[in-house]
Amino acid sequence: VELCRNRRKICPIMWEMPAATMKKSVTRYEELADQLSSQIRAGLFLPGERLPSVRSSGRVHELSSNTVLQAYHLLEDRGEIRARIRSGYYVAPQAPSSPEKAIEPAGADKARPGSIAELAFDLYRNAKAPGHVQFGAGWPSAELFPLAKLTRALKTSVQGLNLNAWPVYIQDANSELSRYIARRSLQWGFDGTADDVVVTSGALEGLLLCLRAVAKPGDTVAVETSSSYMQRCATEQFGLRTVEIPTDPQHGVSLPALAAALKKGRIRACLFTPNFHHPLGASMPEAKKRELVALLARHEVPLVENDVLGELHHAQDRPKPAKAYDRKGLVLYCSSFSKSLAPGFSVGWALPGRFTKFVRRAKWTTNTSSGITTQTAVAEYLKQGGYEHHLRRLRRSLASLQVQAVQALRRHMPSGTVIVPPAGGYLLWVQLPRPLNAAALYRLALQKKITIAPGAIFGSSPHHQNCFRLNYSQSWTPRIEAAIGTLGQIASSMRR
Amino acid sequence: VELCRNRRKICPIMWEMPAATMKKSVTRYEELADQLSSQIRAGLFLPGERLPSVRSSGRVHELSSNTVLQAYHLLEDRGEIRARIRSGYYVAPQAPSSPEKAIEPAGADKARPGSIAELAFDLYRNAKAPGHVQFGAGWPSAELFPLAKLTRALKTSVQGLNLNAWPVYIQDANSELSRYIARRSLQWGFDGTADDVVVTSGALEGLLLCLRAVAKPGDTVAVETSSSYMQRCATEQFGLRTVEIPTDPQHGVSLPALAAALKKGRIRACLFTPNFHHPLGASMPEAKKRELVALLARHEVPLVENDVLGELHHAQDRPKPAKAYDRKGLVLYCSSFSKSLAPGFSVGWALPGRFTKFVRRAKWTTNTSSGITTQTAVAEYLKQGGYEHHLRRLRRSLASLQVQAVQALRRHMPSGTVIVPPAGGYLLWVQLPRPLNAAALYRLALQKKITIAPGAIFGSSPHHQNCFRLNYSQSWTPRIEAAIGTLGQIASSMRR
Repeated sequence: VELCRNRRKICPIMWEMPAATMKKSVTRYEELADQLSSQIRAGLFLPGERLPSVRSSGRVHELSSNTVLQAYHLLEDRGEIRARIRSGYYVAPQAPSSPEKAIEPAGADKARPGSIAELAFDLYRNAKAPGHVQFGAGWPSAELFPLAKLTRALKTSVQGLNLNAWPVYIQDANSELSRYIARRSLQWGFDGTADDVVVTSGALEGLLLCLRAVAKPGDTVAVETSSSYMQRCATEQFGLRTVEIPTDPQHGVSLPALAAALKKGRIRACLFTPNFHHPLGASMPEAKKRELVALLARHEVPLVENDVLGELHHAQDRPKPAKAYDRKGLVLYCSSFSKSLAPGFSVGWALPGRFTKFVRRAKWTTNTSSGITTQTAVAEYLKQGGYEHHLRRLRRSLASLQVQAVQALRRHMPSGTVIVPPAGGYLLWVQLPRPLNAAALYRLALQKKITIAPGAIFGSSPHHQNCFRLNYSQSWTPRIEAAIGTLGQIASSMRR
Repeated sequence: VELCRNRRKICPIMWEMPAATMKKSVTRYEELADQLSSQIRAGLFLPGERLPSVRSSGRVHELSSNTVLQAYHLLEDRGEIRARIRSGYYVAPQAPSSPEKAIEPAGADKARPGSIAELAFDLYRNAKAPGHVQFGAGWPSAELFPLAKLTRALKTSVQGLNLNAWPVYIQDANSELSRYIARRSLQWGFDGTADDVVVTSGALEGLLLCLRAVAKPGDTVAVETSSSYMQRCATEQFGLRTVEIPTDPQHGVSLPALAAALKKGRIRACLFTPNFHHPLGASMPEAKKRELVALLARHEVPLVENDVLGELHHAQDRPKPAKAYDRKGLVLYCSSFSKSLAPGFSVGWALPGRFTKFVRRAKWTTNTSSGITTQTAVAEYLKQGGYEHHLRRLRRSLASLQVQAVQALRRHMPSGTVIVPPAGGYLLWVQLPRPLNAAALYRLALQKKITIAPGAIFGSSPHHQNCFRLNYSQSWTPRIEAAIGTLGQIASSMRR
């Protein structure tokens, strides 16, 4: 056996590089002091926290201990740091510190100012502001969810971690969760088992993994005319071309238009949301879903189905997903608990039909597995059996909130405004009379601490310009009612 | 205000479709019984669990209650289910149930039998088998990590969830964690703040996000001759072409070869692991890293740097990552706590330089955020301050385990075997004398409940055929020593 053993101790040469070979400056210690000072201002070291030792600073910056000491003394003189005997240097209590807003990194941003990306991220930032009325938020209001019970489930999940059997890193998924998902899906006609379930980090990851199973970069995918910003990023990031199929805000994509596009033969897959389309709210009638699946089966074209709002129907019965009509394993179904039970847990799943093996492997090679603790917490919650009860209450709440939102909009919005109330979910698509611009309304409403989601985020065609998405999931209070009034006033004043 | 209100109750037509219009079979109830029976066998309903009600089964399968009842009676007669008065139908206690191994889905698998993908997933499956000696595992042995302390941190993190401020779903990342990562990176010469950190679901996700920032599908990326299976999947899935730059198992990629490739002008980015390359174990000397960064800066070509093992140096000082020499923001650094502190937590991060804004947004549009509970747990652990101590002990353990593994291999492997012990990490790259085939050794060793990672997984060039990767992170016991002996015997017997 030969052994190559002549490896030197890692990098002694550079660590201890003699000062003579360094590019030196007479004010090198001032440079270091300024650098440390800006790190303190950027919140890397908070008041009372210890700075790196002289020895370690010297090694990092390839400076002598003397030079480092000079820098520290300079900062001490400036009152920014304090020395403690036999302990080191600490940030002074009164030192200016702004960890909230630190130095903006010099960014090579691909999004130009004024672009849709800028608008989307501006909304994302503002839709987190705690004092605002969040009609623009994309997520349902937290008060609708059984948070106390979920937190207990999360605690139970963590308590149950067995240290001797720790290796969570070799688990793909919580097997009870997969079994529960499969069993519950039988209720809408799913014909499979836990082996057909791939647990994902939310529905969005599922959509991405499923798209990868059925298309490759450069391929063309059919999509609805409007879609969520995230979903459009998903197709774009993966290098897919998209063909928009005309989409009715009530009944979804036009099947004749889809059939015509399929005939041209370029379409490799479809990415549709048949139930409670986001943002339009459209719901395909059951017969149309059946027809859609049959049409795609004839062309052997897979359908990636987003059913993330499917459980939030306001009427009594759950609409079936297109997957229920799938006989050839060509429908790749994606959903999540994020909108129906556990926002922020990022526990989603895919039922990828004949592409299951590929999607399971793609999931593994993307990020091995999704968070086991949150998966186990959801499984624990489901085991306890309150999910159906929670869903019934959630659906009733959303239906009643929708009625109030629609009534308020009717009272306050300018005439010519059109709303198609969706049969499920928590989002309204509001069409303002032309030429009112929803992005302008967004900016004006923001000044009154009200957010809306301007239509431009959801599609590039001109008919998005005078539309916006309104989230009606917050508890209906006089403050919310008044905010609708303010929106109406702004819109009316814009008109003049 | 116009309102479109003529939406019908969702899908009453199909749910209550009259039996006459259905394609009927005289044995429709037998079909249903068989379907339920196979669901029970597949573990969807375990012994003692309740079957769906007659009404709900009827709705799902579009059958009359009578037909469903006939099916249930048939199953009752067969002894598979039992009726309980005023409660419903339950799976019989003695019913055959095999949730472990259920029906294999009919898969349209892209990986052919005998392919590298099949070999990789076969290893992945076997490297989870609890009774095996896991020289083939890709992760470090769990006993090396402060699991009890991490579990406590996880509990504290969950206890600290404030229900009133619940909306974890609008958090990108734990801000304390980002601050800690930035501050700790100062030790190797990082020149940035918490704003320059993007928290990711493990290093692999970071690499993918960074690659997306600097290349698009169809672009060519320079990589090492060998690389982890996951990393190769990452480039492949994203539609990137790769050019392999000759890689020395001691000092990493050849800079003259890289310079020549860069001159041809096709290379859009590099994806390298300068410290403790996986699987070769190569470490670039500091001067070479500096030269690499300068070379790429001259060509304005970004470097995506994988430094996931950087903390696991066996010598005293941490090798700097290439990022330490980056002056133009062209190095996109990726790492994770998975190999150094918290396996399975999937808490990683990227320092993407001038591409930070893009990577942060790409992260958001990929899966919003990584698990907040595990992020908070890691931040909590770090706050408590045992990390440096843990790392020192971990490094000492790995260094000593490597000595024992190398000695055992010297004693037992056939002459002509070559090992280049890496200066860090927990993996050895073992080159068998030709024409010994490592995939064959893998299969033979598996029969003795020993796994190794055959070289073919790490690269397609012929020189991988007689190599394998050996994980030496398990506690050194007589059983492990004996397993090396067995490996040596098998290899020697193959030779004859």
